[in-house]
Amino acid sequence: MTDVPAGNGPGVRRRGRPPRTESADTRDRILVTAREEFSEHGYEKTSVRAIAKAAGVDSALVHHYFGTKEQIFEAAISVAFAPALNAPVAIADGPLDGVGERLTRFIFGIWENPTTRTPLLAIVRSAVTNDTAAAVFRRLIASQLLRRLAEQLDLPDAELRAELAAAQLVGCAMLRYVIKVEPLASADLEQIVARVAPVVQGHLTGP
Amino acid sequence: MTDVPAGNGPGVRRRGRPPRTESADTRDRILVTAREEFSEHGYEKTSVRAIAKAAGVDSALVHHYFGTKEQIFEAAISVAFAPALNAPVAIADGPLDGVGERLTRFIFGIWENPTTRTPLLAIVRSAVTNDTAAAVFRRLIASQLLRRLAEQLDLPDAELRAELAAAQLVGCAMLRYVIKVEPLASADLEQIVARVAPVVQGHLTGP
Repeated sequence: MTDVPAGNGPGVRRRGRPPRTESADTRDRILVTAREEFSEHGYEKTSVRAIAKAAGVDSALVHHYFGTKEQIFEAAISVAFAPALNAPVAIADGPLDGVGERLTRFIFGIWENPTTRTPLLAIVRSAVTNDTAAAVFRRLIASQLLRRLAEQLDLPDAELRAELAAAQLVGCAMLRYVIKVEPLASADLEQIVARVAPVVQGHLTGP
Repeated sequence: MTDVPAGNGPGVRRRGRPPRTESADTRDRILVTAREEFSEHGYEKTSVRAIAKAAGVDSALVHHYFGTKEQIFEAAISVAFAPALNAPVAIADGPLDGVGERLTRFIFGIWENPTTRTPLLAIVRSAVTNDTAAAVFRRLIASQLLRRLAEQLDLPDAELRAELAAAQLVGCAMLRYVIKVEPLASADLEQIVARVAPVVQGHLTGP
């Protein structure tokens, strides 16, 4: 280490670990690329090598920053769902009798927006077909989103309640956006919210 | 054709199309094999050649009986779900205020039974990841099962009602049997039925 040059002016490239800002940029680029690759090809068909190649870095650097493929997947999902993972506080905030509608609108909002629908669809597909991806999905969405919502609500059986409410929304998303069953696939969103929000509310706060 | 021997005693193998009973046996064997192959490998990774090989017949015979891969898939699902496709009549039969519980118990019954869970899981996985498989799933399950249930119920908006009820059940199945989210995955079935059946009932017959 003593033979490393003492002075490193701006623009002078060093060997070894890149400086902090360049490092952060590279890390972000890998993460964005990983999300795109997982979205396009699913968990099973995406390799660390393919992510590295698409990001223009060495596979070793991807492993250095994120660890295993499972950990990269988890990191990529976490970024994609950062707003969702912070949502429980906002959803639980406000009158308790409006929480069903707030949660329903939040979930349909994600699915109705093409920008968030595409990565979500990829994650759902990966989670349904691959056990490792299912475990990641379970940890992130179930544990963080649902458990945090349950904590905010502070009701008996809150976790099971949150999951049964989520089940209604997950099933609607499956039939409307994935399997595309009619008339649900083309039904007016407000009509669906009007029928689903009370059910979600009932699961969360009902007797 | 005139040079075909006139007499074919039992045990004498003919060329060309097999006689009626042998034909029916072969057709059934192909169908059972197809279901196994689709269950094990999913829609995309299953080829007509692989089905033919596993059934010990020529690919041409598979095409002769069933047509395209999509049509084989549909035929295989139809057999697997023959009881389910006849269920709407039984579910709709009886007092209307018990239809939610009958439908709920019927769907959970399929998922709780390992024999029917395995092919169903394969079909769900195929339908979520492949558009052709999704179309088959949509035609069979949605059109036949849900539409027939809706017809039996004879209510306004019956199809949308049946689909929203199905959404609650599909979502429960996804979280409990596919993603395996706790506490839902290990919850007592009667506890789930007690919470879900009224919701299904509400979708079907509520205001």
